[in-house]
Amino acid sequence: MTSVSEQLDGTAAPSSAALGDVRLDTAGLHASVSDPTLTAMTLLNDIAGRHPDAVSFAAGRPYEGFYEIAALGDHLAAFERHLVDELGLGPEAVRRTFFQYGRTKGLIHHLISRHLANDERLAVDPESVLVTTGCQEAMVLVLRALRRDDRDVVLAAYPSYVGFLGAARLVDMPVRPVAEGPGGIDLADLAEQIRRARAEGLRPRACYVVPDFANPSGVSMSEADRRGLLELAAREDVLVLEDNPYSMFHGGEGRLPTLKSLDTGHRVVYFGSFAKTAFAGARVGYVVADQPMTGGGLFADELAKLKSMLTLNTSTVAQAVVGGFLLRNECSVERATVREAQVYRDNLRTVLTGLRGHFGEDGPLRGSGVSWNQPAGGMFVVVTLPFRADDALLEYSAERFGVLWTPMHHFYAGDGGSHQIRLSFSVLSAELIDVGLGRLAALVADRA
Amino acid sequence: MTSVSEQLDGTAAPSSAALGDVRLDTAGLHASVSDPTLTAMTLLNDIAGRHPDAVSFAAGRPYEGFYEIAALGDHLAAFERHLVDELGLGPEAVRRTFFQYGRTKGLIHHLISRHLANDERLAVDPESVLVTTGCQEAMVLVLRALRRDDRDVVLAAYPSYVGFLGAARLVDMPVRPVAEGPGGIDLADLAEQIRRARAEGLRPRACYVVPDFANPSGVSMSEADRRGLLELAAREDVLVLEDNPYSMFHGGEGRLPTLKSLDTGHRVVYFGSFAKTAFAGARVGYVVADQPMTGGGLFADELAKLKSMLTLNTSTVAQAVVGGFLLRNECSVERATVREAQVYRDNLRTVLTGLRGHFGEDGPLRGSGVSWNQPAGGMFVVVTLPFRADDALLEYSAERFGVLWTPMHHFYAGDGGSHQIRLSFSVLSAELIDVGLGRLAALVADRA
Repeated sequence: MTSVSEQLDGTAAPSSAALGDVRLDTAGLHASVSDPTLTAMTLLNDIAGRHPDAVSFAAGRPYEGFYEIAALGDHLAAFERHLVDELGLGPEAVRRTFFQYGRTKGLIHHLISRHLANDERLAVDPESVLVTTGCQEAMVLVLRALRRDDRDVVLAAYPSYVGFLGAARLVDMPVRPVAEGPGGIDLADLAEQIRRARAEGLRPRACYVVPDFANPSGVSMSEADRRGLLELAAREDVLVLEDNPYSMFHGGEGRLPTLKSLDTGHRVVYFGSFAKTAFAGARVGYVVADQPMTGGGLFADELAKLKSMLTLNTSTVAQAVVGGFLLRNECSVERATVREAQVYRDNLRTVLTGLRGHFGEDGPLRGSGVSWNQPAGGMFVVVTLPFRADDALLEYSAERFGVLWTPMHHFYAGDGGSHQIRLSFSVLSAELIDVGLGRLAALVADRA
Repeated sequence: MTSVSEQLDGTAAPSSAALGDVRLDTAGLHASVSDPTLTAMTLLNDIAGRHPDAVSFAAGRPYEGFYEIAALGDHLAAFERHLVDELGLGPEAVRRTFFQYGRTKGLIHHLISRHLANDERLAVDPESVLVTTGCQEAMVLVLRALRRDDRDVVLAAYPSYVGFLGAARLVDMPVRPVAEGPGGIDLADLAEQIRRARAEGLRPRACYVVPDFANPSGVSMSEADRRGLLELAAREDVLVLEDNPYSMFHGGEGRLPTLKSLDTGHRVVYFGSFAKTAFAGARVGYVVADQPMTGGGLFADELAKLKSMLTLNTSTVAQAVVGGFLLRNECSVERATVREAQVYRDNLRTVLTGLRGHFGEDGPLRGSGVSWNQPAGGMFVVVTLPFRADDALLEYSAERFGVLWTPMHHFYAGDGGSHQIRLSFSVLSAELIDVGLGRLAALVADRA
């Protein structure tokens, strides 16, 4: 039986056999559906699904212990009051705001601007804020805008966030890897990769970084490197795509300035997320795109045009809930997430202490060749093992030892991370972390 | 001052002048930001914005008179009860459902399946339903999947819905126009356009139609043509993309079967919207993609992979509200929208009666060369004028006569619709319709 997609040449009308049932083949669809990163994530989720009782250092979702369903109604009511009391809307306009198609750039841009002023000391014109269906949509929009033709490419520190790689895949934007060290992106390698891309006739448009507690590596950039990156980007005339989902969850020693707050030349496009602060299910994020357009307006306005073809406005009810969340916390996300931040801080300490206990100088497995990094905050620690940590080992680890983690090699385009694993600790209790690390130690003892 | 996008060749490192402020140019961005359709819509919105007191036959948004903000809380509560009572979730699982990242394919797929059984007599496996961030995202996903390389094209009846054209633009999918008659898509022309595309070495993947009360033309396909389209699609081995936002709003004589309900070979990909039934701001829609994949699973699963790179899950709180809306109406959207349907039906009659009164055999402007179509339902009527109806005339109409409408030529790729206007009557009262038609008659008298 022939079918829509089996017609690989596609130029001749099919025979009457085609009158039967449609059957599609992934080979006939856009290559992104067969993307190795996605396939890998499906496989990892499968392994996790088959071992529901394992301790999971794999789940990257936020801590959920403080969520209350009743808060949703309170947030909605707070946003409604804001529309009436602060914005002066009448009953019909309020109703229209909740129910109708709305402003493509969003309803809570002004509240996001207040939050950035409060929490990041960032002065942002609300008109430069585009509220999006999660930060994921914002990344797709920016990459779609920057991918004009086959010559456009972006750069990203590797290992890299899979959501960024997926967004790039969707718009056929090639991502050129840049090395990452313990202090984040390697600026010398960035300059070299830009040079190489240009030598190949390509147009490097932007470089993607997560300067604070990156996913998956947990590393942060120094303030000197932040300034160095901005200087390099200006010299090479590329944009900087700054993604900041984790800066609220610092280790207690305060935070470094965001790239955007150091940006004096509209060099930085800033991605913001509420997934780890308000809640992930809302799917509300944003991008600050204050770059002026030669014809007037801001880059945010061009992105809004693209958004009007992708999802129209971001869900009004989701924005109202997040808007209420901001309003009820005086537009300080840091204030709103004090308890979560403490959980992550405690868990980070528990993980680092536990690793030292098993594999450190006085631990039973000292000298086994296990090492780990020391993130100053965030949700992730990377452990280097003395043996290959691939999907087969993960399956073995889950089956035999009841502990899940993420093989780091999935976050690299080609080679890299073959002996490394990511430990995510955001949803675990101290007790489960200790149990899980004990199981990890047993795996190491078994394999070493 | 040079800038990121002014480097049009992009291969040489810029001079130190680039250290200044970033300035972007639309010429350096993806062509979709300069799409003529979008530019036109911006212009039309500008004209409308400058004439807030004009009677507007331009706004395509749903009637808002029956919306109540208090219903949002009731919907959320109904969905929460459903999770507990029908699905048997415990408190933690309920909380996780509301707040965490969720199933990419959606939370309310089973309720949508019930709605389709109740309202469309469609038996749909919930696993073939992908809940999306409005129907707009569903169109982008399907077109993204079908656009494998430069040879893939889709066909669409013209005049065509601008959201579909915009979605195609975003993924660089060319749309080949097919003629539309008073009974919808012209099947002979469809066959001819498929033949021509193949002769050019292209791969026609699918044909997009709105069989019931199309936007912008208001026309519907006969049952015979629906069957004919399915036979043609099977013979030519293309998919049919059926978009059905308006079928609830029939004129009272009942409805014809959807293409999907006549589809015995998984030939139809069915787009559903809640924008005109629950509410537009929610941004909840869906696609039924039950096509089997050769490697197992359904087309819906492949689309979900793409969605995981675009917006992840559809907003949980938006889905919960729409889920509650369905549950509180026994999963019948027809039942939920009885009042709205009556408004649209009455307004359609008022418009047709009014047009007859002004321009019909006994009207004062009889013989002026004005004609109009007779949609059996929906939200739109198309009027043909004896003179060119372009954006300049719209500006004149707004300025001099205080009445807004949409020039039809914007819904055509190239030529077409130059003397036609779309009248949308969904948000008007009978009184305003009469006032507006009087003003339209004055415009005709002025220009004829």
